[in-house]
Amino acid sequence: MKRLRICILGATGIVGQHFIRILHDHPFFEIVAVTASPCSEGLEFGKATDWMISGSIPPDVSNMVVQETQLGKILKVDPDIIFSALPSGVALDIESDLARAGLPVFSNAAAHRMEETVPILIPEVNPEHLKLVNYQDYGDGFIITNSNCSTSGLVMVLRPLIEYGIRNITVTTFQAVSGAGRTGVASMDILNNVIPFISREEEKIANETCKILGHLENGRVVSAPFDMNASCARVPVLDGHLESVVIEFEAPVNAETATKTMSGYTGEPQALKLPTAPPRPLITMYEQDRPQPKRDLTLSEPELGMAVRVGRIRAHQNRLNMFLLVHNTIRGAAGASVLNAEFARAKGVLK
Amino acid sequence: MKRLRICILGATGIVGQHFIRILHDHPFFEIVAVTASPCSEGLEFGKATDWMISGSIPPDVSNMVVQETQLGKILKVDPDIIFSALPSGVALDIESDLARAGLPVFSNAAAHRMEETVPILIPEVNPEHLKLVNYQDYGDGFIITNSNCSTSGLVMVLRPLIEYGIRNITVTTFQAVSGAGRTGVASMDILNNVIPFISREEEKIANETCKILGHLENGRVVSAPFDMNASCARVPVLDGHLESVVIEFEAPVNAETATKTMSGYTGEPQALKLPTAPPRPLITMYEQDRPQPKRDLTLSEPELGMAVRVGRIRAHQNRLNMFLLVHNTIRGAAGASVLNAEFARAKGVLK
Amino acid sequence: MKRLRICILGATGIVGQHFIRILHDHPFFEIVAVTASPCSEGLEFGKATDWMISGSIPPDVSNMVVQETQLGKILKVDPDIIFSALPSGVALDIESDLARAGLPVFSNAAAHRMEETVPILIPEVNPEHLKLVNYQDYGDGFIITNSNCSTSGLVMVLRPLIEYGIRNITVTTFQAVSGAGRTGVASMDILNNVIPFISREEEKIANETCKILGHLENGRVVSAPFDMNASCARVPVLDGHLESVVIEFEAPVNAETATKTMSGYTGEPQALKLPTAPPRPLITMYEQDRPQPKRDLTLSEPELGMAVRVGRIRAHQNRLNMFLLVHNTIRGAAGASVLNAEFARAKGVLK
Amino acid sequence: MKRLRICILGATGIVGQHFIRILHDHPFFEIVAVTASPCSEGLEFGKATDWMISGSIPPDVSNMVVQETQLGKILKVDPDIIFSALPSGVALDIESDLARAGLPVFSNAAAHRMEETVPILIPEVNPEHLKLVNYQDYGDGFIITNSNCSTSGLVMVLRPLIEYGIRNITVTTFQAVSGAGRTGVASMDILNNVIPFISREEEKIANETCKILGHLENGRVVSAPFDMNASCARVPVLDGHLESVVIEFEAPVNAETATKTMSGYTGEPQALKLPTAPPRPLITMYEQDRPQPKRDLTLSEPELGMAVRVGRIRAHQNRLNMFLLVHNTIRGAAGASVLNAEFARAKGVLK
Repeated sequence: MKRLRICILGATGIVGQHFIRILHDHPFFEIVAVTASPCSEGLEFGKATDWMISGSIPPDVSNMVVQETQLGKILKVDPDIIFSALPSGVALDIESDLARAGLPVFSNAAAHRMEETVPILIPEVNPEHLKLVNYQDYGDGFIITNSNCSTSGLVMVLRPLIEYGIRNITVTTFQAVSGAGRTGVASMDILNNVIPFISREEEKIANETCKILGHLENGRVVSAPFDMNASCARVPVLDGHLESVVIEFEAPVNAETATKTMSGYTGEPQALKLPTAPPRPLITMYEQDRPQPKRDLTLSEPELGMAVRVGRIRAHQNRLNMFLLVHNTIRGAAGASVLNAEFARAKGVLK
Repeated sequence: MKRLRICILGATGIVGQHFIRILHDHPFFEIVAVTASPCSEGLEFGKATDWMISGSIPPDVSNMVVQETQLGKILKVDPDIIFSALPSGVALDIESDLARAGLPVFSNAAAHRMEETVPILIPEVNPEHLKLVNYQDYGDGFIITNSNCSTSGLVMVLRPLIEYGIRNITVTTFQAVSGAGRTGVASMDILNNVIPFISREEEKIANETCKILGHLENGRVVSAPFDMNASCARVPVLDGHLESVVIEFEAPVNAETATKTMSGYTGEPQALKLPTAPPRPLITMYEQDRPQPKRDLTLSEPELGMAVRVGRIRAHQNRLNMFLLVHNTIRGAAGASVLNAEFARAKGVLK
Repeated sequence: MKRLRICILGATGIVGQHFIRILHDHPFFEIVAVTASPCSEGLEFGKATDWMISGSIPPDVSNMVVQETQLGKILKVDPDIIFSALPSGVALDIESDLARAGLPVFSNAAAHRMEETVPILIPEVNPEHLKLVNYQDYGDGFIITNSNCSTSGLVMVLRPLIEYGIRNITVTTFQAVSGAGRTGVASMDILNNVIPFISREEEKIANETCKILGHLENGRVVSAPFDMNASCARVPVLDGHLESVVIEFEAPVNAETATKTMSGYTGEPQALKLPTAPPRPLITMYEQDRPQPKRDLTLSEPELGMAVRVGRIRAHQNRLNMFLLVHNTIRGAAGASVLNAEFARAKGVLK
Repeated sequence: MKRLRICILGATGIVGQHFIRILHDHPFFEIVAVTASPCSEGLEFGKATDWMISGSIPPDVSNMVVQETQLGKILKVDPDIIFSALPSGVALDIESDLARAGLPVFSNAAAHRMEETVPILIPEVNPEHLKLVNYQDYGDGFIITNSNCSTSGLVMVLRPLIEYGIRNITVTTFQAVSGAGRTGVASMDILNNVIPFISREEEKIANETCKILGHLENGRVVSAPFDMNASCARVPVLDGHLESVVIEFEAPVNAETATKTMSGYTGEPQALKLPTAPPRPLITMYEQDRPQPKRDLTLSEPELGMAVRVGRIRAHQNRLNMFLLVHNTIRGAAGASVLNAEFARAKGVLK
């Protein structure tokens, strides 16, 4: 089977760089174009980007000439699929236009996430939401989004625990600065500090979690009625969102049982052995002081930033307390969209 | 009225330094001795300590010869009161011995906090607990403790909200490294990291909060039956514990009303105009991204680290969400004990 | 003598905030207007700025309506003096225009520093350069600049050592992020990192040092012929530039003698007891590991950020090695310009 | 050829962990024992250590039972070679005893470095110093040390430049906290700070550089007569020592020529294709703001932390300025000793 030709939108930012890192040597995909804002147009990618992530720029991508993120120019390179790392404001129109032009769009942008027929897909969590693409108005094209970075870790932990009967969820986040993009957090603001606010993040966690864990009815999602309570803070950490999660159940839950339920959980991406799927999506840790962003996000593990780590699992009455750690720009962004594309291909949605 | 002669135990650490900063020019107290571990004995204080806090060592204290923390040696300097910044292990016996020798002991150590007749006193919160000293077995002496640093901020916020009927409390902390003492957190562990564990801290928050908010019955405290849920983490911040607090009430609470209740709250220390009492113990903030450790703990304010700041107050159904900030080594340690002594003196317990 | 009416240009940034902090209660000056970019025009200052420095915004300034940084609008408020915290690009024309309109301009901007008749004045170092204003073409107005932040610390240390015969100077800087302004350094770039480059900083140190230490000849400065060697790096520190300085002399210099020469040095600002002049401009430290940015820049000292601290003074053959510390936004920026204005007033240049 | 049996002394610290990471799968060596202080004796290595470095503990080493660092116990495991990551105080006697017992000792400790017949070997720099082992009094055994971490980067840069005639060298270091070991730098000391002092580091740089670059005469080293000037500081960075280096030559040196000389430099380890030798020992960088510790020490490169990066190479009169970056616990510690052992084996010194 020949590799599908892909175009990465917004390729010069951190999420774009992770798209390139994951996709440049991918068995199903082949990078044929990268886009950025007009000021980078015409530059070689290696000159247009400030490569911030581990490893070097793949030489073939480094020499690629950056295109402007503009419909006609993108169509001219004749891609089979689009991956989008665009900022939300920019993403809204161009993603729709590309879908309307018949292209499958896998997007990390928030712009279309809450639309009725657009799935926020996490194949381990809500694989059935993939069917929503049949209800979109884009002809052959469609849009599939991944969730917000903090949400991705949370729903993966919630998924196997739903069977115990969840009543409400309280989450407090410790979010890394990379989540705000290349220049999103000024050092004057975060050195020796914590900022207890991230614009629109708490709403995203609440809304996206309920949508992802919702069920399909007549070609639309009925959000799960979870009572969500999110408080988000930025901490002086480069990569990795840590989250303190309290789940209240209908009845008492045993910590050991819950731990086993989580650590044993696998989903369709594991069954299908998708290239970007981690062998175990949830890694439970037994050390008393883990997971930690600096120590538990190493890319030298086979999970490559796609597993969510959970630790300090404690039961108290009807509640379960835990800390989880998710790689915000991989499982919470670029890796999530790549997994979605692999899954869509495996299910025949992507041809 | 002549100033009472005080001896500060464990004076060379960070809490000890704050004791000195606050007390060296105090209207009621006069530092006559400072103690430390045997290895500092005989040194001038200025040589024995590594002064870490703002301002300089007061010259008279700098020249004071450090005593060993040993009963006979302390009694020889004939103090009227003891302030203790000792580590818990060391504090247990020596504090009892000093109380038994007829001395009032105001302690920041955890050693005696959970004893039945020892108050964890916060004069704005549980002034009536001062009476417990009458039930102690120490003759003329007694022990009064202040709470754990994280607890101090939490109970001050809870106190005025109790009237609304609290059902349970969930708190996630972002704690500064100074809370672990001078060398408590290695830089290898915390640079670019968050550690989701602080030994025994979650238990302390739960137990101390319930004790402080409990009522007296027959000369002992009956702990309040709050359902407490604490998750503690260390962040790369020098000073100031930030806490994400979720309070569930019996019925819905209006955010604006709750804010007014908190910001208007004052207690006996304010009525008595005690020197170390902040004009307003709770300062509510309206900015969308405050309080922040780096920006809101400045000692240039009249509160001098003794007020607790609260922000991002949000109501959702029966719950109130907020972030609070407490200066962990002042309101959460040295300043708390000084306020306790001022209060005890004002109430005639200290003569 | 009535207080002179001042207008602060670029008042919303960090240097602007320090101007306000130092000047709002100044015996000689009275803030009558503050300017910023057009987007802040018409806002109250308290709403237009994000106050980052210690202390609160003085209430009278907080309520002041921000003006646009535009000639006509500034003249309308009829100031007696201008203080400028503008970025260099903006400063060039407006500072000239204001001087041409007859106003004395005290500027922290680099725009005019290297002009022949514009002094880079540091009253402890080159008080005689004040005379240059007589050679400017601005009629009654004039422009006096202060130096670049790193340069200010260096020349203050060099000044008393010149008599020993300096051959060349090597300096490596450890510069704080506040030197790049409110959002100048992204946290992604500096957390857990050092950046060995600051645009145009090495040239500024070389050129400004030679100009400041130069002598006047026919109404212009003849730069000192020092062989300068600067290497500049940014470190994850909020405030305070540390500099490793190696001075090579014509002959061996004794470390103790040099230390005494520095610590005993005072200049005209000290003799004139100017309000912003530190009692001792150079504070030599004897501890083996000082000065340190976090510990030695406290504003609780009488020097209030205007003294330069020097430590680890070591002689080796013809060379003297040392580390110096300068508060980059006070002695290296706002405080420097205020001292220049006080000095100009004392010398009758400012009426 | 069968793999030599190795014992790693002081294996639980950071340098010890790097020894294990590099050696556990090495073509020439096989880990048969690991030692630590008595308090770890008898524990499985995985329980005795707090693994801080990237990757996981190799399972076979994880299960190894830790020995006490004691002569008899070490000899009982019958090793062929010793690698030592001991602290200097402990290293002095045990390393001598092991050499006397006929074992080759490759040590990262400073204890024996300055002894007349002990080489501080860097095979790219002073391969001929290997011969010194013939002059040691240890019978079949010998001691070979690697240099101090800061020195290792410096001498590698100096080596190819010696031909231009070096007159003196000035270096200012920005050293990572890992250089002080697992708990060597307290977070209270280094967060938001720079410490301009590292105990005995400046002397080590001066003495070791001169010894390494010295020549052999009658079985001892005659140190090179370089005039060295070192100033050392600790910065809040986890890994990687950055150094600002100024080299004064006898005559002007062209920056481009010097860059080529450095980037083209290779030594015996490259010619011998030793497993741990980086393809290019010196990597010159052309970007205006590199090298940076966070960005340029990635272990995903083929150099694996063994190359030294050099950037910002600027010539000025007789001087060359540059910044270099060395991985302090790999090229500056464990990797250096492993390369020494590989080199000794290739030269027939290790059988």
